[in-house]
Amino acid sequence: MGPGYTKLVQGLPASVPFVGPEAQERARGRAFVARIGANESVFGPSPKARAAMQHGAADIWMYGDPESHKLRSALAYHHEIASENIVVGEGIDALLGYLVRLVVEPGDKVITSAGAYPTFNYHVTGFGGDLVCLPYRADAEDAVALVKMAAQVNAKLIYLANPDNPMGSWHAQAVVSEMIALVPAGCLLVLDEAYVEFAPEGTAPPLDIGNERVIRMRTFSKAYGMAGARVGYAIGARDLIRAFDKIRNHFGMCRMSQVGALAALADQPYLRSVIGQVAQARRTIGQIAAANGLVALPSATNFVAIDCGRDSSFAAEVLHGLIARDIFVRMPFVAPQNRCIRVSAGTMRDLDAFGAALPGALDDARQK
Amino acid sequence: MGPGYTKLVQGLPASVPFVGPEAQERARGRAFVARIGANESVFGPSPKARAAMQHGAADIWMYGDPESHKLRSALAYHHEIASENIVVGEGIDALLGYLVRLVVEPGDKVITSAGAYPTFNYHVTGFGGDLVCLPYRADAEDAVALVKMAAQVNAKLIYLANPDNPMGSWHAQAVVSEMIALVPAGCLLVLDEAYVEFAPEGTAPPLDIGNERVIRMRTFSKAYGMAGARVGYAIGARDLIRAFDKIRNHFGMCRMSQVGALAALADQPYLRSVIGQVAQARRTIGQIAAANGLVALPSATNFVAIDCGRDSSFAAEVLHGLIARDIFVRMPFVAPQNRCIRVSAGTMRDLDAFGAALPGALDDARQK
Repeated sequence: MGPGYTKLVQGLPASVPFVGPEAQERARGRAFVARIGANESVFGPSPKARAAMQHGAADIWMYGDPESHKLRSALAYHHEIASENIVVGEGIDALLGYLVRLVVEPGDKVITSAGAYPTFNYHVTGFGGDLVCLPYRADAEDAVALVKMAAQVNAKLIYLANPDNPMGSWHAQAVVSEMIALVPAGCLLVLDEAYVEFAPEGTAPPLDIGNERVIRMRTFSKAYGMAGARVGYAIGARDLIRAFDKIRNHFGMCRMSQVGALAALADQPYLRSVIGQVAQARRTIGQIAAANGLVALPSATNFVAIDCGRDSSFAAEVLHGLIARDIFVRMPFVAPQNRCIRVSAGTMRDLDAFGAALPGALDDARQK
Repeated sequence: MGPGYTKLVQGLPASVPFVGPEAQERARGRAFVARIGANESVFGPSPKARAAMQHGAADIWMYGDPESHKLRSALAYHHEIASENIVVGEGIDALLGYLVRLVVEPGDKVITSAGAYPTFNYHVTGFGGDLVCLPYRADAEDAVALVKMAAQVNAKLIYLANPDNPMGSWHAQAVVSEMIALVPAGCLLVLDEAYVEFAPEGTAPPLDIGNERVIRMRTFSKAYGMAGARVGYAIGARDLIRAFDKIRNHFGMCRMSQVGALAALADQPYLRSVIGQVAQARRTIGQIAAANGLVALPSATNFVAIDCGRDSSFAAEVLHGLIARDIFVRMPFVAPQNRCIRVSAGTMRDLDAFGAALPGALDDARQK
């Protein structure tokens, strides 16, 4: 007989949000040739960030500063807000978990889109929340419908990723601002801007840390190329940010990651060069798709959803064909988005490998 | 108006378990000369671990393996158990948080000792648990009393650190084994062995992964010298370990930390050299205490509690005197342990600075 798990835990599925590429490699017994499935940045972090982490390895005997003071100060300067409006955490994933824990009791309603970020759903379910999922509209999260539904069911949280993962679509600032204006009292909009650095100028509404109904999530995992370092941050009203201190893992930050993020933030020219390389990679993915008779969806992220032109079974066959050809890619989970596969921006070499593998994967899929 | 926090969160204090030394330095406007207050390992990690992390910085664009497969395999080999009996997490702190979340519902009883590890209490309170704290006996956690109390109040969890923090005391294997045998059904003993590598051979009972009533916590933060990397692990029955997958932050591990821990584990000769250096530092701390007319308590850890010979106010004055002299140390929170200050094993230079500062700190305290 084991311990007395909580009723909530007893009811939770054993399923996990994502299987890592390493697990797939172990199951296959073979490494991938191109790792372009997890929206990681193949272009890596700034060389200065890498050097800072390498230098920081000598200090690893010390716990990281639980307040991430230097990093928060630098972020505050960068965003022209105060440190007290920023909380740093072990990636957006951890911050989403803390946030859900702060506000969601069993039975509380939470609004998201069917097929949006599964790790958010994982946390909501994990704390007993009741997810209300609205369909995508034209491959985008239906921003205003989400907030209207929140008012209707008295929701605690609304999730919107802008730009969106897995489709790469995005809303212009005006749409998000309209949405923000409609957030009902007692409800909080989680604006996940993990990919915002890749989006056209003006996609993100101005930061308004006086608004207690919005929290913005940012990360060093995507444009800054440090997914493995686990550094995310949230921007919000002072009292909301302070509430994280009641529950977060204060000593949870890796010290090397803290110094790495600080150096990465300071190297904005490098960030801009990555954004340029990613834009080029998106164009290349679009060309590969077109050369194979497929349509690449517009993207404001570091990945491209490619419409495989048929149903989800077909897209899944294409995906499996690519994986069999040592190309790690993923696909959306929910219809109608799952007619697509999702390809992360890769190096020229990654995309050459993808371009070489796609025709065979498509042929195989068509013959199933 | 902010978001609708849960009832539980509304009732939580804003206090945090520990203030970091960096925050103290900022408040003082001056750096510490000796950082010997947080039981970090001034001797650092194995040079091989440091090299592995430095090398790993190049791979930081990739998420860490969410299963920490290589590290768990190496730990399984090291401990002669199966990987499925090990879960890796962002330090013991995170694992304690996950564990509490798995089993503690509001009002559930949890047994610990008055003045034992505050971060465990933080998690218990954070999930609405009801702490029952028993007094230390002869500066040690009262192992058998804890487990008897658990039976009496139908507790979900019992916490025992062996060796103990903050006193450095330890129980021989036979005592812990007796305790384990008495854990009631439906209850789980959390055996925090963060410092066990420093303890005399035979302090830890043999691992028994068939026993569903015990979970063991280990870390790379102490003897392995990697506090800033945030790598801890728990050893337990397969079903219990699997339950962590329902709620943990699967992608929470820093990739550099994973490779660092793997290399640190492989370098057991270095670990032994650190254990030797720590033993020497404990002796030096004992000599400094004796030279100042104070008694150093026996310790099986990388720190020493020094009995200042009077009450907690006096010890606090000594502590403040040391901090004013740029020596970062801490002290126990609860009587009668708080008649002591707690000094971590330092380098010769750290302990020279401590030895130079202590007489003045004592003089000042005596004159208050």
